[in-house]
Formats: sequence, structure tokens, C-alpha cells
Amino acid sequence: MRADLPPVPALIERKRDGFPLAPGQWRALIEGYTAGRVPDYQLSALCMAVVFRGLDPAELAELTDAMLASGDRLRFDGEPRPRVDKHSTGGVGDKTSLILTPLLAAAGVVVPMMSGRGLGHTGGTLDKLEAIPGFRTNLPLADAVTQARRIGAVMLGQTEEVCPADKRLYALRDVSGTVPAIPLISASIMSKKLAEGLTALVLDVKVGSGAFIPEEVRALELARTMIGLGAARGCPVVALLTAMDRPLGVACGNALEVREALAMLRGEPCPADLVEVTLALGAEMLVAAEGGAGQGPGAGGTRRAERERRAAARARLEALIASGAALDAFRTLVAAQGGDPRVADEPEQVLPRAPVVHEVRAHAGGMICEVAPKPLGLAVVALGGGRSRVEDRIDPAVGIELRARPGDTLARGDLLATIHARTPADAEAAEAAVRAAIRYGDEVVARPLVSHRVTVEGVERL
Amino acid sequence: MRADLPPVPALIERKRDGFPLAPGQWRALIEGYTAGRVPDYQLSALCMAVVFRGLDPAELAELTDAMLASGDRLRFDGEPRPRVDKHSTGGVGDKTSLILTPLLAAAGVVVPMMSGRGLGHTGGTLDKLEAIPGFRTNLPLADAVTQARRIGAVMLGQTEEVCPADKRLYALRDVSGTVPAIPLISASIMSKKLAEGLTALVLDVKVGSGAFIPEEVRALELARTMIGLGAARGCPVVALLTAMDRPLGVACGNALEVREALAMLRGEPCPADLVEVTLALGAEMLVAAEGGAGQGPGAGGTRRAERERRAAARARLEALIASGAALDAFRTLVAAQGGDPRVADEPEQVLPRAPVVHEVRAHAGGMICEVAPKPLGLAVVALGGGRSRVEDRIDPAVGIELRARPGDTLARGDLLATIHARTPADAEAAEAAVRAAIRYGDEVVARPLVSHRVTVEGVERL
Repeated sequence: MRADLPPVPALIERKRDGFPLAPGQWRALIEGYTAGRVPDYQLSALCMAVVFRGLDPAELAELTDAMLASGDRLRFDGEPRPRVDKHSTGGVGDKTSLILTPLLAAAGVVVPMMSGRGLGHTGGTLDKLEAIPGFRTNLPLADAVTQARRIGAVMLGQTEEVCPADKRLYALRDVSGTVPAIPLISASIMSKKLAEGLTALVLDVKVGSGAFIPEEVRALELARTMIGLGAARGCPVVALLTAMDRPLGVACGNALEVREALAMLRGEPCPADLVEVTLALGAEMLVAAEGGAGQGPGAGGTRRAERERRAAARARLEALIASGAALDAFRTLVAAQGGDPRVADEPEQVLPRAPVVHEVRAHAGGMICEVAPKPLGLAVVALGGGRSRVEDRIDPAVGIELRARPGDTLARGDLLATIHARTPADAEAAEAAVRAAIRYGDEVVARPLVSHRVTVEGVERL
Repeated sequence: MRADLPPVPALIERKRDGFPLAPGQWRALIEGYTAGRVPDYQLSALCMAVVFRGLDPAELAELTDAMLASGDRLRFDGEPRPRVDKHSTGGVGDKTSLILTPLLAAAGVVVPMMSGRGLGHTGGTLDKLEAIPGFRTNLPLADAVTQARRIGAVMLGQTEEVCPADKRLYALRDVSGTVPAIPLISASIMSKKLAEGLTALVLDVKVGSGAFIPEEVRALELARTMIGLGAARGCPVVALLTAMDRPLGVACGNALEVREALAMLRGEPCPADLVEVTLALGAEMLVAAEGGAGQGPGAGGTRRAERERRAAARARLEALIASGAALDAFRTLVAAQGGDPRVADEPEQVLPRAPVVHEVRAHAGGMICEVAPKPLGLAVVALGGGRSRVEDRIDPAVGIELRARPGDTLARGDLLATIHARTPADAEAAEAAVRAAIRYGDEVVARPLVSHRVTVEGVERL
């Protein structure tokens, strides 16, 4: 097959000029790249051409398969239970994975979740988990499978064994301005998700200024692309579009977010938006695990029947929280991965706490019309809670608890946010960022929390 | 200035999203690339973004200046005579440089011509010159200036001293599918031409299937871009669009083309299209040297007066050929650069000749409607007259003399071409290529030989 491959510049020119590559050519390119025969400067130029020209479905499928084939995968041969994961395109304050993994495990679904680190202004699930003392995320694949079979859940990072071609290509795209190409994003996500050996996937596509793809129309395109890819690969995908024009929940920062996730798992008072998004995603996961709706024409019955199934699934998840089963599953998960299981019961004692706790109060009264997530995420990074460079070390204790929500009417002196910092100077800088991120005015900027549901059957506005 | 430069990925993203880079950023990028701080994979992605987004005039000027500033240039301080060069965008059978350089020197114009090697299906002036035994093209810049001052002409290659950033960037573009971006082509050509210390430049923009930019509308865009760049840099540019939907002249191949150029310089019978294009370009060069037309509103008087000046210039050039002055200048040029000057008087004895001379005759009668230059150029490369790889050695003797022209009506057995090859097998392969390149039919494919004249004042159809 290598002998048949035209010279790489000819392939780049073909894509540049708007033609699809022929069958086998993407596979050969990725194999050549992994083997070091195709240099970075050709792949980066090709990726830029894809930014402008896209990929057709056959190219996209081949690229995804080639990245998947470049490494190993989780092997669940003979496992009778459904395996479902949730993937978010990334946002600020998004801690739903920490809740959904034990919650779905408690419901009898196997959740083999492979997550990432913080990226840009967004946090990463691995960083959040590592706020729990002792928690290990770098498990060998075989151990991850064993754990998932045993306790129904595992949360791990993308090791060198999984999709190494994707890992290398992603790093290249990150430094060559070629990240926001929907087919490349889709192939990158889907190759990793297929490596998890899933029976279904629920996708949380963030929309709004804090999302990597802010525009609704492009977010829908990403959802459709992923759904098409999954359908062709035997992994049904359901996508929800959720709001990222404001942070999700109150807590932004690693330990703070673990604390907030635990509040929900413990049935404590908890931000309503976090509950809403988490349960909407969880209900989709549970229905999908049951071989549910959205997996083909007629598979799920009428829309009304589908809504009823999701409502029932949601009620079941709420009951699993109320009974303590979800918290038990979390405790078991933490213990299995080397973390201190007391975190489930005494989070305040176990989670790290920042030395400086600083309140930010309103200078004037009025209605809050916007709370911009991106500057807040960057403020958390600046506090030490995220990375500017790959090699940066994270301080799990720092972060921002954001008390003000779009639509709130505040009086002078009301609490806007609580900042958790290493030094007073850090806290002051974060205060300035918080004040700049909060805008007063009459026209509230707030998308519907869960705005669209996308399946192979089409798009449903919620 | 380096400290102010945003991270390179941010610059790539800016261009990708359709925004111009800020003043100083292109300079910093090129300086960083030359110094090895900016890697190939970022420049190739950036070049691909430029393919889609272009450069605005300020960016283009800065890029050109930065490439020029990366190396040395020809220094003609105190030289009172005008210095004019002609540059062609490249074609098949294009030997006009070999004629124009001595011809214009005979007319009192200094021609410091820096040329290239064959590229793809096109020949290169350096390769043609080196068909003359002993001819050296790798002159140090100081020696080139000394020679140009002394005899009015020098023909050399782009040494490491001249625009090294362009040289490296061009090599990168060649292997990353980013050659055909008009601003990048313009900056590459113009940086080298500005390094020649010219007072004016005449551009031969090829149009048609054998040109690197086949479409007339894009060829005009290239001409306008180069003219704008030259105007802003004190080097007036006049461009002619000439036909490259068929080879120029009869001879294709290095020694054969030298022979054909000498036929014109010696006043011998010579293909009419070669004479026409050469004299049209030469007249522009002479008028430009005289500080002529096309250099600003009103500078050259009315169009009619301009045409009369060009006609007078052309007559002067014809007289310099008829008198033998042009041939004398060629002889002097060859001798100055180490070549055997007898080539001017006994070309048949001095130029290398291929062992196999093979005639291709028409299998049937009919009208020839097309002679495609690209497959013919590739056939010359396959005969050994060009390079498939940079390291290939050229055989100067091989080539194709093409006797059939679009519009000719032939009888069975008439001569189509004469092939000069190293082996009978090579000749047979070339014969097949010649036959495939010649198409019979009713609708002749032949653009006007010289179709447009472009100056700062606008476009004139000829």
C-alpha cells in the first residue's frame, strides 16, 4: 500500500484544492506520520488545508480508524453489561464527569472514562481527580479494564498506548493554529472514545463564549459529525448542546469542583444548573445503556415515549443519589485508584485548602446580565489552578467560587465570589478578573441550559 | 521587538481567521525562522493559511523586505546606467533570457540577471547556460557586480548570500503544498529581484495549461501584486501576459534551446512566436531603462505615444541583432563567465549533441488543435533534460524539437517532432509523450501570444 501512495505534497495539494483523498491515503498518511516518515511540516500544512476544506464522511472515518489503529484499546470481550461514557467538549466549572461516573456505575452501567488535562481556559477531569490525595489516573489499560469490570467505573488518562497518532497530531495542531477544524476535533475525540470499547456515547457539546466552538451552528455540526462517525462504527452517539456562556455551577478550580460534585452526590444543596445538566446527561447515558432512543429510526418509539423514558431514567438516578448508592460508588472508585476514600464523607478534611480566602463584594447594586466564563477560567489558571505550559504544576486548592449568576439582582455589598488563592496578591489579581468578567445591565446573556438534543434521527430543540 | 511578538500559534490563528498580521510581525517571523526559533511546521501551516486568506499590501511588503534583509544584494552604488531585468514565471521552451540579456547589454542597459534551475515541467535558465561548456553561474556577488559594470550583463544563480530566508521558505513550500499563493510567489520573486539592485523590472507572466498559474484572472492578479510591490520599493514593474498553452518556439531542452536562442541572435531563421515574445519583452525593458512608460500617471504620455516608443525600441533591438552587436555581447558574456565563446559562432561544434536523433511523423493527416506544454516538459525531464529530484544530474544534450504548432494542417508522414535522446528506448518513450501531447481537431487552442500589458496605470489588452 505504501508503494501506491502519491508523494505527500500531492496529497496536500489535493486537499488544498478541495478534493477528498482517495481510500487508503489517510491511513497511509497517519501510518507514515506515526512511523516518522511523514514530517510535522507536511501534516501541519495538511491540517490547515482541512481547516478550510473539511473532510468528507469516508475520509473522516478512515482518519479516525487510522488513529485508533495506531495504538491499543480497552478490551471488554465477553462483558455483558453496557459500557457508556460521556464526553464534554470542554468548559469552565464543568465537573459533571466526577458525578456521572459513579452515578451510572451505581445504576449498573460500566463507565470506562478516559479524560484529559486542562486546556486553555478550561479545566480537565484528570486535574480535578488528582486534587483527591493519592488518586492515580495513569493506569495501564489492562488494569483499567479489570477495575471497570469489578466496580463498574474507571477514570484514566490517555496513556501512550491509546491512539498515539492522535496524541502526536493533537500536540502538533495545538502549536500550528489548526485546532478548530470540526472533522479533526471529531476524529480526535472519537478515536479515543472508540478505544474505550463503548456500546454508546453521550456527548456534551458546549455552546457560547466559553466553548472552543462558541457558535451554535458549528456546535450542531460537530454533534452531527460525531454522531455520523459513531453510527458507522457501531457506537451510537447522542449529543446535548449545553450552555457555556457562563460557568457551570459555582465552583471553578480543582478541589473546589470535587467538593461541589460531592455535594451533589451527597444530596446536599447544590447549584441548580449543575444538577440540571448532570441529570440530563445521566438520563441520556442510562437510556443509551438500555439500548435506548436515538439509535435509529423507530428504535426509541415516539418522541413522547422517549421523553418518558428519560424522565424515568432521571428519577432512577435521583433515587440512587438519595439512597447513598452513588456516593458509595464514588468512595469505591476513589479507593480503587489509590485515593483517600474518606474524601466522600469528610471532603473538608481531606481536600487541600488554599491559605488565602478572599471575598469579592459588589461595589454597586444592579442586575447582572453576563458572567463571562473564559476570563474566569483564565483567572483560575493564573491563580495556579491550570497550566499555561504543559510542564506547569497545578495547585489543586486554588480557584473561584462564583456566587453571582446572570439575572441575579444584587445590592451593594452582596457577595460576588469567593477566591481561594496562595497569596493576597494572587487573590487581588483574581478579584480584578472576576469584576471584569461580571457585567451589569438589562439584557441577560444566558442561553437555555440544555438547548438541543441531537441523534441520528435529527435535532430536537428542548 | 522579539519580546513584543505574540506566540507564533496566535499569529497563525490570526491569519487563519482572515486578519492581517500587525506591523513588525512578519519581519519577526522571518527573522525567527532564519534563526531557527520558528519551526518548519509552524511556517508551513501559516503558508497554507496564506493560500486561503492572502496577504494585504502592507503584510506583503514587510514579508518581501524581511526576506531581502535576510541576505546580501548586488551593490551598484554610483552606477549611472539603468539596470533592468526580465523575469518569467516559467514555461516550456522559454529561452528569451538567453537572448534578452546580451541584446539589452548591447543597447547600453545593465542586465544583472539572477535565474533559477528547472522546476517541475519547466526548464531553468541556469541549466540552459550550463549546456555551454565551461559556463559558470555560481559567481560571488561582488564578482557579478564587477562583471555587470564592465560588460553590461551577468547571469548568475541565487547564491546562499541572497535572500536565504526565501530560499529556505521556498524549499518548505515546495514540499508542503503551499506554492501557488500569489502573495508568497510575489514576495519570493520580488525579494530576489530587489536584491539585484534594479532600476526597473519587466515581468513575463505565463498563462495557460503549461503555466504554474494557468488562469488568466489569477495571472493578472499576480502581475498587479508584483507591480504594487515594485512601485512601493522604487522598482517600477511592467508585466506582459504571454501564452503558455503551447511551448514557446521549437526547441525544448537545454542545448537545443541555446542553439535556438543563438539562431535569433545570429539573425538566422527562427520561430516567429519566439521572436515576437522576445522583442515585446525587450522593447519593454529598453523603454523602462529609458525611464519610460508605465511608471506613473502621465509619465509615459498617451497610449499611442507609448506604443510608438515601444515600436522604436523594438526597431533598435532588431538593428542590434542585424548588426551583430547582440551576438558580440553574447560572446563576451560567455567568455566572461568561463564558457567557450566559440559557441556564438559554431554552436553545432561546441554544444553537446545526443547520440540518438529520432523523428516523429504524423500517423494521419488533419489539423492540430492543441500542443500541450506540460506533458512535453515532463517528457524532456524524463529524457534526462530536467530534474525529478534536486540531486538529479541533467543531460544538456537531450530534448525535443517540436515542429507541429496549433493550427497547422498536416499530411500523414509529416514531421511532428525530432527527439534527441540518450537511448532508443528513451526516444520511444518521448515519442509516446509527444503523440499524447498533440491533439487533432477543429477548435484550435491558442491564446494570443502577448495578450495583456499591465502597469501601475492599469491593464491594456493587446
